Amino acid sequence: MEKPSLPKGTRDFGPVVMAKRQFILNTIRGVFQLHGFLPLETPAMENLTTLTGKYGDEGDQLLFKILNSGDYLKDVDQSKLTTKDSRLITSDISEKGLRYDLTVPFARYVVMNRHDIALPFKRYQIQPVWRADRPQKGRYREFYQCDADVVGTDSLLCEAEIILMIKSTFKALGISDYTIKINHRGILAGIAELVAANENESSLFVAIDKLDKIGAEKVKEELRTRGFAEEGLSILFEILTFKGTTQQKIEFLKTRFASSEKGKKGITDFTEVLALLNGYRASEDHVEFDIALARGLSYYTGCIFEVKINNVAIGSVSGGGRYDNLTQAFGSKEKLSGVGISFGVDRLYDALEELKLFPEEAQVSSTVLISHFDEASKRFGLGILQTLRDKNIASEIYPDSVKIQKQLDYANKKMIPYVIVIGSEEVKSGLLTIKNMKTGEQEKKSISEIITLINRN
Amino acid sequence: MEKPSLPKGTRDFGPVVMAKRQFILNTIRGVFQLHGFLPLETPAMENLTTLTGKYGDEGDQLLFKILNSGDYLKDVDQSKLTTKDSRLITSDISEKGLRYDLTVPFARYVVMNRHDIALPFKRYQIQPVWRADRPQKGRYREFYQCDADVVGTDSLLCEAEIILMIKSTFKALGISDYTIKINHRGILAGIAELVAANENESSLFVAIDKLDKIGAEKVKEELRTRGFAEEGLSILFEILTFKGTTQQKIEFLKTRFASSEKGKKGITDFTEVLALLNGYRASEDHVEFDIALARGLSYYTGCIFEVKINNVAIGSVSGGGRYDNLTQAFGSKEKLSGVGISFGVDRLYDALEELKLFPEEAQVSSTVLISHFDEASKRFGLGILQTLRDKNIASEIYPDSVKIQKQLDYANKKMIPYVIVIGSEEVKSGLLTIKNMKTGEQEKKSISEIITLINRN
Repeated sequence: MEKPSLPKGTRDFGPVVMAKRQFILNTIRGVFQLHGFLPLETPAMENLTTLTGKYGDEGDQLLFKILNSGDYLKDVDQSKLTTKDSRLITSDISEKGLRYDLTVPFARYVVMNRHDIALPFKRYQIQPVWRADRPQKGRYREFYQCDADVVGTDSLLCEAEIILMIKSTFKALGISDYTIKINHRGILAGIAELVAANENESSLFVAIDKLDKIGAEKVKEELRTRGFAEEGLSILFEILTFKGTTQQKIEFLKTRFASSEKGKKGITDFTEVLALLNGYRASEDHVEFDIALARGLSYYTGCIFEVKINNVAIGSVSGGGRYDNLTQAFGSKEKLSGVGISFGVDRLYDALEELKLFPEEAQVSSTVLISHFDEASKRFGLGILQTLRDKNIASEIYPDSVKIQKQLDYANKKMIPYVIVIGSEEVKSGLLTIKNMKTGEQEKKSISEIITLINRN
Repeated sequence: MEKPSLPKGTRDFGPVVMAKRQFILNTIRGVFQLHGFLPLETPAMENLTTLTGKYGDEGDQLLFKILNSGDYLKDVDQSKLTTKDSRLITSDISEKGLRYDLTVPFARYVVMNRHDIALPFKRYQIQPVWRADRPQKGRYREFYQCDADVVGTDSLLCEAEIILMIKSTFKALGISDYTIKINHRGILAGIAELVAANENESSLFVAIDKLDKIGAEKVKEELRTRGFAEEGLSILFEILTFKGTTQQKIEFLKTRFASSEKGKKGITDFTEVLALLNGYRASEDHVEFDIALARGLSYYTGCIFEVKINNVAIGSVSGGGRYDNLTQAFGSKEKLSGVGISFGVDRLYDALEELKLFPEEAQVSSTVLISHFDEASKRFGLGILQTLRDKNIASEIYPDSVKIQKQLDYANKKMIPYVIVIGSEEVKSGLLTIKNMKTGEQEKKSISEIITLINRN
């Protein structure tokens, strides 16, 4: 029998990694709930009619599709099979696919439960998604997304709260050097007007989005081949390369957008969001107005966000923005505007690891191992174990009668901080030997003294 | 566009249901961790080579299989396609499937990480599994399992701890009327010897397992058609219908098993588990020695468990047992014995709902909504909101400027217990109106008095 393996691009999370991941997820969940967001979970499988056409052609290719159950070939046309054209028969043999993101299932949920939902609806969702992407370093075929969205209101308070949530999350994670880049689709639209992009708006945004990665010259080149005139490009780069404070940038754009309604709306919204932050007594620290921030997804219509941890070679760890019409793709007539934020757990994990920011508590081992010299000591240890657990101290007893050293090795390997050693003397006196596995110190204490010691540390 | 729908047998969990599910899952997770179990997560997708052949023919039929990406038909033999025989081409077009349970992925994980694992290895795993079963009331195609297993030790302490964990879980869930049925495969094997089942052991166990559901007469009938002699059947039913205390049952079986090594081993193990419970100062309350308990899965070799909530028309909510050789199916030469328990979240949910046992805290709504009469009050409310959140009180502000009644309706629908109402008077005086949404009472208080009030309740 060949050795078992994992499908490529997927991972097991063992206890040590799980503890750190739970630290991140619990932090994010706590921040979401503190800000009034409620949990939602949707099934891993969605009908392909729900998923297809929502992520562009490339996205459709990356959907994991589930083979229909039973005799799935039975009703497939023989002539189709003869062509051996996979694309022709996929819809005949597969009706379901795995969730590709959390936004489309959320939109589907809102449409299906519209009458039971109190608007504005604030939901968070922390679940894995699946993409049949080519696996590479830092890119997996199964990964978690952590999304929070509020739909059913245009209020810019929601944008301000997104910024607050990002700040709270990073504070709780212990990350201090990071930048929340903000822009507004109206500002990008205003720029598009200025450079006469017309129908070419989206190629403009896609190119701008690469500025950070490929540099100004390559972006210019790309835009030239897309038919942008030199005059437009020089206006564009004057704007994109403008240096100054947020206030200076705003003043600068105001003069440029004198005749652009969209541009003006972008500036007004953005200014209001900053003013609201002030109302929350929150500073503008970490917030950077980045005129070149575009974010690929075309469904954003208002403010857009992206968060980078500085001095760490990891892409953005969070992003989001406002969209006009969440449920449009499902033919809903009601326009539900919303704004959302998504955190990338894997990148946050790598960053926290690199910055050595995982706290010691981000570890879920037992606090105490009870070890024993013989059968009678073990039996005696059961009562001690029960007492510790009654005090809510995670504890275990080594189940077999083996040499003490083997039991201590087990505690070390599991990173259990305290070991209680029980032998005949301890059984007689009731005074237990407790060993601090970090310092190696050991002392004799009563069980109630041990509980006090553990609760103090 | 047609209305979106869910794949059959799958469910969304909205905020209210999520809160209750989280109450159950957090309770179980807490108990597992208190007893020294550490978390593991495995990917939703496994290679079909890992899954196939582990669950019997019927199980293989119920695996959800994932269509290979890209041009999956390219290398399929044309002659195979011409047959239109689904079974012939499945392995050509699908290499991966969805997790069917948590045990096989756990065994795969142990084999793949054997050298990094400290034995005994205590892991818990709380994740969804998928089965292409015919959906019906209470049976879903996606559902969560909550498993805890310890492998790498024969110690019966582990069996005793399983009983302790069941008791802790039910206590924390508030369920008081339940029964932990216990039996031992050795006892069943001893019975099989007595009735001369020989090669027919597993049909005997399968039939016995149905005793509760279909009654003695039908079980007898089934066994007759399987070739069991009347003499054997009368011995069998004398044992199965023996009434008495646990001690009386043990004495009765001892006489019967005088010449059955397996039977004796079963009795010895079972007696030792009860003695160990005593060592933990845990009573035998709720524990019932059920000679007729068989549990379908053939891989159990020692103690077996099943938990029923009494006076609730729901099947067993938990079950498990000891197995001899976890990793055998993966060709591992090392014999790893272990024992595990699994809780069924959906059935626990239904039982808690029926018994009205969900606590009020099993609800994750914000504690406070800030409502406002006008734009200035709203702005003033932002500082209040920040103060509440700084005190870790989950709070939100109604984001739009609408009539107070609409804001109160929102709080009611979201089951938010307190609403702070802010108008021009409140802005001037700093004394806020706080409304208790349950009692309807409202009073004027300073923000620090409000915080005290909320923390008291």
